[in-house]
Amino acid sequence: MDTRVTAERARAWLDVAVAEAEAGLAEGGVPIGAALFRLDGELLGRGHNRRVQDGDPSMHAETSAFRAAGRLRGYRDTVMVTTLSPCWYCSGLVRQFGIGHVVIGESTTFTGGHDWLAAHGTGITLLDDPRCVRLMTEFVAARPDLWYEDIGE
Amino acid sequence: MDTRVTAERARAWLDVAVAEAEAGLAEGGVPIGAALFRLDGELLGRGHNRRVQDGDPSMHAETSAFRAAGRLRGYRDTVMVTTLSPCWYCSGLVRQFGIGHVVIGESTTFTGGHDWLAAHGTGITLLDDPRCVRLMTEFVAARPDLWYEDIGE
Repeated sequence: MDTRVTAERARAWLDVAVAEAEAGLAEGGVPIGAALFRLDGELLGRGHNRRVQDGDPSMHAETSAFRAAGRLRGYRDTVMVTTLSPCWYCSGLVRQFGIGHVVIGESTTFTGGHDWLAAHGTGITLLDDPRCVRLMTEFVAARPDLWYEDIGE
Repeated sequence: MDTRVTAERARAWLDVAVAEAEAGLAEGGVPIGAALFRLDGELLGRGHNRRVQDGDPSMHAETSAFRAAGRLRGYRDTVMVTTLSPCWYCSGLVRQFGIGHVVIGESTTFTGGHDWLAAHGTGITLLDDPRCVRLMTEFVAARPDLWYEDIGE
């Protein structure tokens, strides 16, 4: 069983997060998606930002995927896969629950706390996925009000 | 209009968070409560940990109160009041959204990220409330499994 986080596996996992981001965009929401996998490849939960859809500012993509996975006893062998560098809120989630690894679609449009996570022992795989960059670049240009609301700025 | 965070106002706000923690305990849940106030005293949202009640590990007391407040444009003039020192997840929430001040019932049974928040400019009022200490001390002794699940340890 492959439990390494290779670039190939990370890219395959990212496809799920991108599909979530695209679903969020189609719903008129913030196009950020995430998925929580176990290192063996099992998908535990997936979700996307739901600020607009549910009027819920607490549901970022990562918290949505984390919630969808339900109650678990330990996260060291899990991987949070997200289309965008996790904000401080979602970075705090990763640190508190000891999620072992984070795969990030891109961090050029926004950089959250992934360096802080790396300094505290979380594995980080930073991809530079053009789909993720395009989703966020177009969204921030089209809806700056919504984007800055979502990150509290 | 009083917009200072005095010890007297902080203690009055904490009563709301304690009532939430007690409600959570009565429901068989993790007895941690929180409330988000505006500095002018308006209650924006209140809630408690809902891991057990909803099978939702993303609903800590602070995220529950934050969610109940709905979508807001800016948090600088808000105060997060919580019965227990906020974990990294909830500390990340405070930092990302720029919540101006955090009132904490106690930090003797658990210490999260409030020093980190203070270092980044968040106002911190740390009380030493015997009701909060008792709620957590008794809960951790009675349900260590649930408590360590809730903080990912």
